[in-house]
Amino acid sequence: MAAAINAVRANCRKVICIGRNYADHIKELNNARPKQPFFFLKPPSSILLPNAGPVLQPRGVIMHYEVELGLVMGKQVKDLDPADTEGAVRAIDSYILAIDMTARNVQDEAKRKGLPWSIAKGFDTFLPISGVIPKSRIPDPHDAELWLSVNGEVRQKDSTGLMLFRIPRQLADISSVMTLEPGDIVLTGTPKGVGKVGAGDVMKAGLSVGGRAIEEAGIEVP
Amino acid sequence: MAAAINAVRANCRKVICIGRNYADHIKELNNARPKQPFFFLKPPSSILLPNAGPVLQPRGVIMHYEVELGLVMGKQVKDLDPADTEGAVRAIDSYILAIDMTARNVQDEAKRKGLPWSIAKGFDTFLPISGVIPKSRIPDPHDAELWLSVNGEVRQKDSTGLMLFRIPRQLADISSVMTLEPGDIVLTGTPKGVGKVGAGDVMKAGLSVGGRAIEEAGIEVP
Ligand SMILES: [Mg+2]
Ligand SMILES: [Mg+2]
Ligand SMILES: [Mg+2]
Repeated sequence: MAAAINAVRANCRKVICIGRNYADHIKELNNARPKQPFFFLKPPSSILLPNAGPVLQPRGVIMHYEVELGLVMGKQVKDLDPADTEGAVRAIDSYILAIDMTARNVQDEAKRKGLPWSIAKGFDTFLPISGVIPKSRIPDPHDAELWLSVNGEVRQKDSTGLMLFRIPRQLADISSVMTLEPGDIVLTGTPKGVGKVGAGDVMKAGLSVGGRAIEEAGIEVP
Repeated sequence: MAAAINAVRANCRKVICIGRNYADHIKELNNARPKQPFFFLKPPSSILLPNAGPVLQPRGVIMHYEVELGLVMGKQVKDLDPADTEGAVRAIDSYILAIDMTARNVQDEAKRKGLPWSIAKGFDTFLPISGVIPKSRIPDPHDAELWLSVNGEVRQKDSTGLMLFRIPRQLADISSVMTLEPGDIVLTGTPKGVGKVGAGDVMKAGLSVGGRAIEEAGIEVP
């Protein structure tokens, strides 16, 4: 299992993250609701493997967690038809759970100044991931429950059924801009409840399907 | 030579681009002069190898060229000291010339709305590159001349000596955020003269040192 997730990091050439994909999360950050999926990149160097230590808080940075369902791509995808649900599912090799760590104050300043988000999203360790979740464990990626706790207190807990843009639409829009390659990771957006963490806080996250926890999806970041 | 540049694309896990690094280019786009280098990511999937065809103009997109000196990293770099000029040079494996194609209208809208630049910068074919330029060909990367022409008319032609932030400072700032890995590409910014190109326009670009053209640096995009 460790070997499998190490391979995910080693084979990853881009991480594409969907922004503002859950309505209640858009409200909590006072953002505008997008008319189409938008996305940004995190560098593969930001991936934090399981049991690889804590998220490192850069000096002066306010760090927010965002738990997200991740797709590990198994096929090249280009100009996918948004109606091609089966094509989208076929292109996915496996799933991961991930925390899209965000330097919120850096991001707020970037937004204000019209600057890119890459720094706010791209620090080393800013992408803790779970083990590899075999595809068979999640029969319907729009019917799973994500949760994240800080120091034992649940902060995010919502169904992936609340996504504004479903996975085929996400892959269609991404792949109309940039070809998805095997090994690429897509993060599908975060539900409400994002917030601050700092040194000493313990984040845990998980995913359940039909009320049953998926063992491989567990994340614990000291 | 083709094998070498194919390997550059195959081994690239992130492309980090410095923005606003030449004073006259900042003026021409009415941008603010940054107090420190800022940067953004292009996906490796945007790389267009030599002789791999034209840049593809997405529908509704105003495309701008930006010629830039690129560094292909040979070593892992983390928290480089900006004063460590030798360390910076040692970390570079080789150079490339590159055109940072930009969907300028998409970028302008992103800036206005505080959205990420990844789409504006990340389309397939939006990163034409030259062949691999051996390090020995550019004894001082701050003393080379870049040029770019459209349909035979020179549009950009300036010395890399005009960079506001030199390469050691760029690598220091990038690596204080994200670890640079072997194979990563750093684009060092574009001089003045950026502008529009469209279907049918032929872009050529090159680099000279001490008045002599470097053969490997030639780019021609039909
Ligand atoms: Mg990338
Ligand atoms: Mg996110
Ligand atoms: Mg540029």
